[in-house]
Amino acid sequence: MQQEYTARAEQIMQRIHELAAISEDEPGVTRTFGTPAFLEGRDLVQSWMEAAGLLTRVDGIGNLRARLESQNPDAKTFVLASHIDTVVNAGKFDGPLGVLTGLDLLEQLISQRADLPFHIELIAFSDEEGVRFHTTYLGSEVVTGAFDHAMLARRDENGVTLDQALEIMGGDASQLALDAIPAAEWLGYFEMHIEQGPVLWERNVPVALVTAIAGQQRVELTFRGMAGHAGTVPMNMRQDALCAAAEFVLTAEQFAQAHGQGLVATVGKLSISNSASNVIPGEVTCTLDLRSDNQAQLADAYKALLNFAEGLAAQRNVELVWKLVQQTAPVACSQPLNDLLIQAIAESGYETISLVSGAGHDAVPVSAVAPATMMFIRCYKGISHNPLENVELADLAAAIAVAERFIHQLRMKHERTSC
Amino acid sequence: MQQEYTARAEQIMQRIHELAAISEDEPGVTRTFGTPAFLEGRDLVQSWMEAAGLLTRVDGIGNLRARLESQNPDAKTFVLASHIDTVVNAGKFDGPLGVLTGLDLLEQLISQRADLPFHIELIAFSDEEGVRFHTTYLGSEVVTGAFDHAMLARRDENGVTLDQALEIMGGDASQLALDAIPAAEWLGYFEMHIEQGPVLWERNVPVALVTAIAGQQRVELTFRGMAGHAGTVPMNMRQDALCAAAEFVLTAEQFAQAHGQGLVATVGKLSISNSASNVIPGEVTCTLDLRSDNQAQLADAYKALLNFAEGLAAQRNVELVWKLVQQTAPVACSQPLNDLLIQAIAESGYETISLVSGAGHDAVPVSAVAPATMMFIRCYKGISHNPLENVELADLAAAIAVAERFIHQLRMKHERTSC
Repeated sequence: MQQEYTARAEQIMQRIHELAAISEDEPGVTRTFGTPAFLEGRDLVQSWMEAAGLLTRVDGIGNLRARLESQNPDAKTFVLASHIDTVVNAGKFDGPLGVLTGLDLLEQLISQRADLPFHIELIAFSDEEGVRFHTTYLGSEVVTGAFDHAMLARRDENGVTLDQALEIMGGDASQLALDAIPAAEWLGYFEMHIEQGPVLWERNVPVALVTAIAGQQRVELTFRGMAGHAGTVPMNMRQDALCAAAEFVLTAEQFAQAHGQGLVATVGKLSISNSASNVIPGEVTCTLDLRSDNQAQLADAYKALLNFAEGLAAQRNVELVWKLVQQTAPVACSQPLNDLLIQAIAESGYETISLVSGAGHDAVPVSAVAPATMMFIRCYKGISHNPLENVELADLAAAIAVAERFIHQLRMKHERTSC
Repeated sequence: MQQEYTARAEQIMQRIHELAAISEDEPGVTRTFGTPAFLEGRDLVQSWMEAAGLLTRVDGIGNLRARLESQNPDAKTFVLASHIDTVVNAGKFDGPLGVLTGLDLLEQLISQRADLPFHIELIAFSDEEGVRFHTTYLGSEVVTGAFDHAMLARRDENGVTLDQALEIMGGDASQLALDAIPAAEWLGYFEMHIEQGPVLWERNVPVALVTAIAGQQRVELTFRGMAGHAGTVPMNMRQDALCAAAEFVLTAEQFAQAHGQGLVATVGKLSISNSASNVIPGEVTCTLDLRSDNQAQLADAYKALLNFAEGLAAQRNVELVWKLVQQTAPVACSQPLNDLLIQAIAESGYETISLVSGAGHDAVPVSAVAPATMMFIRCYKGISHNPLENVELADLAAAIAVAERFIHQLRMKHERTSC
């Protein structure tokens, strides 16, 4: 068995490398939505799907969709998916790993001439990263029926609208509504994706259940004190905006450390206006990125850090400008699907680890219409969005084994349900 | 008397405004070393000196020098000085106030037909700010004999060497050694200058004695951790370079606060490599500017903060690169001259305040060859190197009264000594 999974993992790896060779530039991988490289990559994936005997089509937003039909025409549809667009200078695995491992699973089912109690639709989403039009989930929003048609007027950096881009790609924006899978037809959703974080790498465990996708609050803060000469203003007469910001940075860190694994807090940007080594910083702007899978925890953390920032600004006699620039709610994965996946991980002989995804995924829009879950696969040092992104063969083989068992259990469950 | 000082202060103000109108650009004042605006400004000051009946000359480095000779040919020389070059977009008072208040004192002595027991040389230094050739004190280093001839090869941003600049200004670099006042001829040095800090403004006292010019250590530090996704790396697995830097910023502040008025510590620059709001900072570079009038305190603070930075880097598992980029030793003003000045302040009816100058002044090179002291004059909110720089008339009038009394006491002392 182990040997068979390794051989299948080798073929998936081979395809991942072949697909990665199609890129707008080098040495990393760049296939942003709708570009010639994107279309060429999608054609390649489509050729593999068709060679496997699947019926394929490209929908109006450019998603590549392949179906393995159940003999029961009233069966619901279970979606296996991930995306094939990339960020700029990306790695090879973020997205393609889920699509090509899904294809491998369907190839096995076809070779077994399996008759499933549900249709499986394998989708390669066309736009998850959102690099070109500064929006995410275009592909999955169309499939879930959540696509906002106002987006069609958005322009990329060359002034091309999304509407025009779809036309150039051979799509038809007027038909997008027809590309949605109606809510009643969804059985569920399963996505395999690299972790993009270091937990599995450090713990040396190949896969993990994703229980939720974290919600996020993104804040931009400015501390305004008084610039002054670094030599001539005594310490007790300063209004140093950088000292205020430094206190905030450390408090955000300590707050997240003290409030358990669910919460992360990051100050990623910080800049001093008109800085010089001999000038006391007069104005500092920084960002705060807060994430948690627990909405109440996220809201509490937001309030606590805002209160803290106000308090330290008052104490240091500096002005605070606090601006919430983005917020998304946490999304929980489906408990019944999670249970099946954890069972599959355990039965495959691996330690069961549950993680919250701090990054967003297509499971976010899908969760609004269907039960969804995700499996993370261990990646090298947690590095992602970087040409150094890598997955070890043994971990991919383990992922295939677990996913296959998961689909098998889903099948058993629905065959039982149907009896 | 008060009315007379106010009238004299008004004339000085008038001249300061006239000189400030000569600038390379607007709305601030810019007269960097050797530029046409600099030369035009110097000509104007020279015309006022000559109108007062003083003998003037321009020396090889472009200093404007006027002498009021004692009838005793063996008398030593007491130097009154400040500078007439400026930073870019400067205020009106930094430098010119000392030169033009000195001229006022000489005008009074001339009108009184005073015979002093020492020569007075009033010098308008040509380069204190060092903007053009990135070096300071060119003017006073020539007068003290400390000029380093290697400097002549330095180039400004247009590729003009200092040597060439001197030739264009009509100077003669080969004769610079002759422009030094021999060490044996110095009686002392007195400079009036705006405080450039907020102490006198806040305390509402017009003048202060400067007891020392702080020494300085300037450090560039880099903390190297590991960049990562703000959503996917748990708090306890991070190596956040910004958190390390923030801890350093606050420790530097607390250390200086805890170690008395003599020490100031400033982190003026801080930048994150490849920063983004959703990326954990992987590398942060910042500066440390440490100043004190006490060499032992400065050395101790430097060592303590280096130790602290090493400790926190080890604790946070980040790399530290610590680079000392500049150091100057503190310079103490002359105790006998300080005593005379404090006495003059007290006898003029003002609160006696002693300050350490955190900024450098020409008194630094002069102190190597002659007793020197300085008087600070209150400036608006401590703002300097800024068009908002301002001095109130009443404070300038007070400064004239104190300086006149100081010169008088110096005279009395040396007449007594000569008897």
